[in-house]
Amino acid sequence: MKNSIDFQTGLLENYLEKTVRKASDMRGFFQDEKALEEMISQGDPTIYEVYAVPNNGEGEISYAVTVIHPGKVGKEFFMTKGHYHEIRNRGELYIGIRGKGLILMQKWAEMKIENIERGNIVYVPPCWAHRSVNVGSEDLVFLAIYPGDAGHDYGSIAEKGFAKIVVEEDGGYKIIDNPKYHE
Amino acid sequence: MKNSIDFQTGLLENYLEKTVRKASDMRGFFQDEKALEEMISQGDPTIYEVYAVPNNGEGEISYAVTVIHPGKVGKEFFMTKGHYHEIRNRGELYIGIRGKGLILMQKWAEMKIENIERGNIVYVPPCWAHRSVNVGSEDLVFLAIYPGDAGHDYGSIAEKGFAKIVVEEDGGYKIIDNPKYHE
Repeated sequence: MKNSIDFQTGLLENYLEKTVRKASDMRGFFQDEKALEEMISQGDPTIYEVYAVPNNGEGEISYAVTVIHPGKVGKEFFMTKGHYHEIRNRGELYIGIRGKGLILMQKWAEMKIENIERGNIVYVPPCWAHRSVNVGSEDLVFLAIYPGDAGHDYGSIAEKGFAKIVVEEDGGYKIIDNPKYHE
Repeated sequence: MKNSIDFQTGLLENYLEKTVRKASDMRGFFQDEKALEEMISQGDPTIYEVYAVPNNGEGEISYAVTVIHPGKVGKEFFMTKGHYHEIRNRGELYIGIRGKGLILMQKWAEMKIENIERGNIVYVPPCWAHRSVNVGSEDLVFLAIYPGDAGHDYGSIAEKGFAKIVVEEDGGYKIIDNPKYHE
């Protein structure tokens, strides 16, 4: 399939799968459940969208553009659900297109955090769970490239969360321990 | 390793391996051997450079920026050697950054050719040999992303070539049968 990416907007000309995560799809992921329910009742906005070109199978390469809208649930910035790969030892490459974000990576008790912004390349090594967070005031857009047989395991993160969360403070952001986290 | 790519120039801030292919490294790849030898004797210019960040191993993702300079050997445009992956069923993703080029893909008797230009995404499926050609008048620069265990097999192409070659005609380019090609 012919494709192209607009380096300004990050939009893919062609994609095969579009995933939309509304506030109501994110129950259990944010700290402030009351704020989330209020948001759902007031229009249930989209938190993020993923435009993917999966090439499934061993040795294949899949890619996707993710757009995380700006916003907060309570004090916590909009973010992706985060996942491990179903086949754990599969890496992923992130290339920031626009906006200002963070990528949280976690492997057992270890945690790494990198910036996602225009032109940044972040490598998520095999076996690391990863979640992206929009800490800016506009869309965060990035391109992710991953092995075609990686798969997604959202369950482990849905159940346990990440060890850290990203919250607003004085107009900026702060990374703090997740009070609900358990190993 | 932290890294970033300049979306205008295509340059990587950090890379781990730099490969330079001069005219003298390309003996046997172009049709006009006399023109190549003359070029070598007159300063042996660089045909292309590859700036790579290899992450070797199963499930890892490697990436590299290739810069093919503009020029011709005889009537044939500057190009990469071209390769299969050592593990044959490994794909590769190309993202054009600047310049004007072609990517030739070959699998047994089949051949596919796609444009590489700014923002174009070309997927080379597993098992296809691939070679890039600069058909423009400035550097052709692209980012390639490939499985960390893919490896490179240059020998098969060095020996047999591609079924098609790309030559200058009337200020543009023409894709013609490779007179030296044998299966």
